[in-house]
Amino acid sequence: MKNVNASIITIGDELLIGQTIDTNSAWIAQELNKIGVWVQRRVAVGDVWDDIWNALDAESKDSDIILITGGLGPTADDITKPLLCKYFGGKFVVNEDVLKHVNYLFEKVYRRPGPMLERNLKQAEVPDVCTVLHNARGTAPGMLFEKDGKLFASMPGVPHEMKGLMTNEVLPRIPKYFKLPFIIHRTAFTMGTGESMIAEKIKDFENSLPEHIKLAYLPGYGMVKLRLTAKGDDKEKMEKELDEKFAVLKELVSEWLVSDIDENLAMVVQKILKEKNKTIGTAESCTGGYIAHLITSNSGSSVGFKGSIVSYANDIKERMLGVTDKTLRSVGAVSEETVIQMVKGAVEKLQVDFAVATSGIMGPDGGSEEKPVGTVWIAAGNKTKVETVKLAFRFDRERNIEMTAHAALNFLRKFILANS
Amino acid sequence: MKNVNASIITIGDELLIGQTIDTNSAWIAQELNKIGVWVQRRVAVGDVWDDIWNALDAESKDSDIILITGGLGPTADDITKPLLCKYFGGKFVVNEDVLKHVNYLFEKVYRRPGPMLERNLKQAEVPDVCTVLHNARGTAPGMLFEKDGKLFASMPGVPHEMKGLMTNEVLPRIPKYFKLPFIIHRTAFTMGTGESMIAEKIKDFENSLPEHIKLAYLPGYGMVKLRLTAKGDDKEKMEKELDEKFAVLKELVSEWLVSDIDENLAMVVQKILKEKNKTIGTAESCTGGYIAHLITSNSGSSVGFKGSIVSYANDIKERMLGVTDKTLRSVGAVSEETVIQMVKGAVEKLQVDFAVATSGIMGPDGGSEEKPVGTVWIAAGNKTKVETVKLAFRFDRERNIEMTAHAALNFLRKFILANS
Repeated sequence: MKNVNASIITIGDELLIGQTIDTNSAWIAQELNKIGVWVQRRVAVGDVWDDIWNALDAESKDSDIILITGGLGPTADDITKPLLCKYFGGKFVVNEDVLKHVNYLFEKVYRRPGPMLERNLKQAEVPDVCTVLHNARGTAPGMLFEKDGKLFASMPGVPHEMKGLMTNEVLPRIPKYFKLPFIIHRTAFTMGTGESMIAEKIKDFENSLPEHIKLAYLPGYGMVKLRLTAKGDDKEKMEKELDEKFAVLKELVSEWLVSDIDENLAMVVQKILKEKNKTIGTAESCTGGYIAHLITSNSGSSVGFKGSIVSYANDIKERMLGVTDKTLRSVGAVSEETVIQMVKGAVEKLQVDFAVATSGIMGPDGGSEEKPVGTVWIAAGNKTKVETVKLAFRFDRERNIEMTAHAALNFLRKFILANS
Repeated sequence: MKNVNASIITIGDELLIGQTIDTNSAWIAQELNKIGVWVQRRVAVGDVWDDIWNALDAESKDSDIILITGGLGPTADDITKPLLCKYFGGKFVVNEDVLKHVNYLFEKVYRRPGPMLERNLKQAEVPDVCTVLHNARGTAPGMLFEKDGKLFASMPGVPHEMKGLMTNEVLPRIPKYFKLPFIIHRTAFTMGTGESMIAEKIKDFENSLPEHIKLAYLPGYGMVKLRLTAKGDDKEKMEKELDEKFAVLKELVSEWLVSDIDENLAMVVQKILKEKNKTIGTAESCTGGYIAHLITSNSGSSVGFKGSIVSYANDIKERMLGVTDKTLRSVGAVSEETVIQMVKGAVEKLQVDFAVATSGIMGPDGGSEEKPVGTVWIAAGNKTKVETVKLAFRFDRERNIEMTAHAALNFLRKFILANS
């Protein structure tokens, strides 16, 4: 069976001057992957006629599906729509459905007074050679084109508009044009060791995998996800084979295994809390609320998470968490004693079953010889017991915060499992 | 003067299956832009020999500088180094400096017991046709190649390692190979209106700009940054001209202007606090600590920021912030009354000059007809005064949290400016 390949073209100067981080491509790739389409290339080009034109030529030579995002905004630097109209040999017509929708959005949703801006009226003009894709979340419609057996979809670059269009309009149409293989994934989520160490441990397993099962290492903040992917026609046989291989893999990495599905760490913690009917809170100094954010990013987090005290200043540590002045004076805020008192204070004040506390030096300033940038103390505890760990990171501020938050959440996870 | 163009090639299956969001390219593009190099294309390819080879061919045809990240890890799926060795006609040799550095990292920094893994020893092997670039932050060295007047730099994909290599090794070398123009930017940071409205307001200004001054719209969470970029040889003349144009632009958008430099919103607030010698805190329900995180992401935030109470559960709102049971029962947590009480509680309990409070429904669950998903109440206040605003978003959870946090921080900024 022939592979169905895709290319993603993202358009916009903002991508080339580095102002915008391209999160769309990763999301699109994930969704395509799920239905058995392999993304073989992603290209970002500016709002430059020739560059966009050449990208369309180059990508349609190698790929069956070409997904285009961006360049459809109402401002003057967006040239994508006229270019697509010419590329596919069409002419502009006003689409009445789009016009109605744009009018509806301005009158009922945005509720902007005054006459509609001419720029927005332009949104209702589409090439007569495209299938218009309804963009429920914005004024710029999606457009579907066909040429020489290849499928092209153009969508706005605004992430939530693009996601709506992909989910409701583009993805459901792909199986009508192409016969897709079955793709199955299994993901082992590990924390506590590095890529090299895991690679060493599973190298015989990795070498024994058949051609149609692939292993990917997906590292992130102190974690490594190991993803097995099988591709083929016989779904049942593939699932059986993949499950067998996955069982072997899980056994090999069992000491570091956090979860055997592809989820984030906060979700793992959330499930444990739900299952055990327990509550948590956080007392955060150096992580500054980021652990609470990781937890509350997941819908349904109110089940086990009650709240946090972000005690950035020392007087908040004292008054709201009960850290003693003596401790802060003698050993400082970044110390084992401080995080122990913080976690005890959090359990008591937030009235939770378990809490985690962090204190550290995230950089770039504030380090000393004794406590260099990256020094972190973490404590996890309940009413009767506290455990601590000292960590040393050596990254930049952003990454230190992310690493510390994930390490703290994992430390809390292990504490809960061992003490309930 | 000829433009110096660059291409960025990112390598790795993780980019094509969407597991990793490519933050490297944006950062690299920003840094190149600053020194007058224009990124004309970004390409992501998988760990596939032909795809990488073809990308090198294609990009070096059009660009002067080709920056390559990723594909240098110690695991089996990384083929970039042997490919580069062959592409540039070299053979592998062990580099003694790299070997020493790898040994040092394992012995002194990582402190891993046992013999060094063979995979890591491999890191010290480099093509004899490259200039080795010292990677202080990791084991995989950077490599610089020259071919037909084009410059190629290969770096690991780990962001903090790549950043170190770019800053210390790659960027300083570029002016030795290419004559670069002067590039100057001015950025007007606005909040409170959309791209279309601004475009309408400044269209005459935009049309009046000379060819060598470009305007870019850079939208983000409820904000739009307007960036003017001038490019040329005569730095003094350019600066004078750009400053004149920028003054006009600032005047045109003055009602929405937050700052006239390219910084984040939390930095703007931080500067105001420093200047006025005031302190702030947050009381966060629906934003779950994200406002505190935005603030503490900036180094030096301890100057004005004292801390937060993340009151996700109602009993935390009552006990720690003094929201009354009566209010919660009668009008609910997502109400004007609740955020008023929250902000008063925060000012008192955190002992700060100003506070901001948020309560809302971030979705996807929890909405009702009366309070649909996206309903948000925000309050800002000091000891004597509280102001509130009700907002309605219509995005997904992640974006609702980001939009709410930025709107709250901007509401707090305006409150501080009006009341101190």
